[in-house]
Amino acid sequence: MNEFELIRRYFACQPVARADVVAGIGDDCALLSPPAGQLLAVTSDLLVEGVHFFPDVDPASLGHKALAVNLSDLAAMGAEPAWFMLNLTLPAIDESWLAAFCRGMFMLAREHNVQLVGGDTARGPLAIGIEAQGFVPATTALRRSGAKAGDRIYVTGTLGDAAVALQHRLGKQRLSESDFTVVADRLDRPTPRLREGLALRGLAHAAIDISDGLLADLGHILAMSQTGARVYLDKIPLSAVCRAHVDKFGWEAALATGDDYELCFTVPPQNVATVEKLTFACGLHCIGEIEAETGLRIVDTSGQFYQPAFSGHDHFSSLVKQSI
Amino acid sequence: MNEFELIRRYFACQPVARADVVAGIGDDCALLSPPAGQLLAVTSDLLVEGVHFFPDVDPASLGHKALAVNLSDLAAMGAEPAWFMLNLTLPAIDESWLAAFCRGMFMLAREHNVQLVGGDTARGPLAIGIEAQGFVPATTALRRSGAKAGDRIYVTGTLGDAAVALQHRLGKQRLSESDFTVVADRLDRPTPRLREGLALRGLAHAAIDISDGLLADLGHILAMSQTGARVYLDKIPLSAVCRAHVDKFGWEAALATGDDYELCFTVPPQNVATVEKLTFACGLHCIGEIEAETGLRIVDTSGQFYQPAFSGHDHFSSLVKQSI
Repeated sequence: MNEFELIRRYFACQPVARADVVAGIGDDCALLSPPAGQLLAVTSDLLVEGVHFFPDVDPASLGHKALAVNLSDLAAMGAEPAWFMLNLTLPAIDESWLAAFCRGMFMLAREHNVQLVGGDTARGPLAIGIEAQGFVPATTALRRSGAKAGDRIYVTGTLGDAAVALQHRLGKQRLSESDFTVVADRLDRPTPRLREGLALRGLAHAAIDISDGLLADLGHILAMSQTGARVYLDKIPLSAVCRAHVDKFGWEAALATGDDYELCFTVPPQNVATVEKLTFACGLHCIGEIEAETGLRIVDTSGQFYQPAFSGHDHFSSLVKQSI
Repeated sequence: MNEFELIRRYFACQPVARADVVAGIGDDCALLSPPAGQLLAVTSDLLVEGVHFFPDVDPASLGHKALAVNLSDLAAMGAEPAWFMLNLTLPAIDESWLAAFCRGMFMLAREHNVQLVGGDTARGPLAIGIEAQGFVPATTALRRSGAKAGDRIYVTGTLGDAAVALQHRLGKQRLSESDFTVVADRLDRPTPRLREGLALRGLAHAAIDISDGLLADLGHILAMSQTGARVYLDKIPLSAVCRAHVDKFGWEAALATGDDYELCFTVPPQNVATVEKLTFACGLHCIGEIEAETGLRIVDTSGQFYQPAFSGHDHFSSLVKQSI
């Protein structure tokens, strides 16, 4: 088996067969049939060894995460996922590594009925580029620019777990084995909040997924919407492990580091009752409100403004990533 | 100016503004409005330093080529290009390099009215992944699988120039400076045959772009169409530089090495007269015919079967590329 056949074998046997894929892997292009009357939502994310993940990363987790971070972007638009392309550079062919990588990637693909329709491979330093596509009605797409003064700000799930796990792995903090097990999955196998994004169509004014930290990502909503916000520290949802970490080391893990892939979104007053009734398995918490005055004001329990030590950009010197 | 702002500045100022781009760079996803009643043609190609290009490559040529090889895949489906995403890993920010890269890429984008709508950047070894999208009517898409016995086989332009230029650059052959100038552009700045692909809609039975060599790529058509072919050596179009090379070193450059990005396509007898009347600036040559008997038979001027020394896969040990 040569290198081409091997790779073709691993990827051509992908497990999803959608009716809207007229031609998938194997021609010059994939031929796809988007539904009439909806917009196509398209996103692309890179994961590079030594920048986004450690060289000894579990390949199944890496396969999961490479797809998950793209599906998370679709979730943040309120889009329904459909197809993805994979660009993979590999230093060498390692059959068991590739099998595990595909297992992780395709298990998530199957869960969300998203089909691999093409891509490219090359020999080179390990890097994964995925481009994912989905559908969203034009009128209910969740843009970053839609927030209005008076909107309530919500986040799904809990924040900071991925950052705490990363600090442990970098040797900067020490967690007990059981605590690490709890948070490691948040870093290694994030859950794209696709069902939550779909449920928020027509209810949320603006949304983003938290990949660079709450402050940076909420900051994008504020900048695009030309608004400001007030966020209450004691309303930010934390896991027990992260709560203990925050009490000891401060709020930066929960506020200024990313990789949680929770959704942050804003809801106008008239939709708050409906949103509060949504039952999300991951939970849903109101953490503040959009204000007309620009700037992000973080308020602690004593009513004082809290000034984070860093804001979420360039949060690890080795970690440099930015969407175009 | 930090790294994020710099990259955002270079890419956000892309020169094309299509009416079907509802949201381009700057949100979680691009939002795109595909035309009703057509299929979406999607393709993705990687260029990795040391594999697909030399470290000292001219950045403007690299920007051109990274987009051109993707547009070439759209051309081979008969698709009209619309949008593209860029994933770029860079070892460091070099403003003049980035400006030149963007100039080359955006000049080609403008020529074909194709808009950059998103992507991702990261620090890492230099690599470019582009994913391009276009439209094609379902009934006239040029598939690899459509060839039928009796079809004539055509190629656009001339073959082998890129291979001859590469041999010179690798120090394996020596060209005069004037000869090298003629062929270097074929390797460095290939022309995607988009107008030709559009003109062949409804006329050609099957098509592919030649990126791995005529033998390998025509071989894909034969395999997908479950047919064979006869190709006449003396009908293969060559530039004067490549002709001199072939006379001296044999046919491998023209037959078994790629990067010419010409189209190879098959035409049923009833459409031959119409196709022969098409005026392609790059030229158009009939090189053989599809036969029911499987296998590719190459016939020399004495009527003997010609056996190439290698067939186009793995044609340079450092050059390992394959589409999924």
